[in-house]
Amino acid sequence: MDIAVDPKLLEILVCPLTKTTLLYDRQNNRLISEAAGLAYPILKGVPIMLIDEAEIIDETKASELRDLFTTKGDT
Amino acid sequence: MDIAVDPKLLEILVCPLTKTTLLYDRQNNRLISEAAGLAYPILKGVPIMLIDEAEIIDETKASELRDLFTTKGDT
Repeated sequence: MDIAVDPKLLEILVCPLTKTTLLYDRQNNRLISEAAGLAYPILKGVPIMLIDEAEIIDETKASELRDLFTTKGDT
Repeated sequence: MDIAVDPKLLEILVCPLTKTTLLYDRQNNRLISEAAGLAYPILKGVPIMLIDEAEIIDETKASELRDLFTTKGDT
């Protein structure tokens, strides 16, 4: 197939939660947000960019974020 | 940032409708399904892989698909 693969795509995709760049975990076919400690699955070729569907891969970071979003910081 | 950009990502992403590979339209920041005649937007870095949110870029192909999904072909 005559498909132009553009590596720029990964540079513009971000985590919907932290807005930071994602890593493509080719082995497990998912997009990793290191900042959020979450992995977004790619199901049948379709990336599922929903926090509720993401897998927690770093409990510490994920719970930090949960705290951040439940307890609103002062200032 | 120490981000490994993996061009393989685009090779595994597919159109949710036609299951064919997508093209990254860098200029308009969207993912194009040539087979479906649709473009999936990337909003704030998050690809929206929903048919209802896609923009029709090829009316002929898009309507062919609509026919396919509304009129069920005989065996």
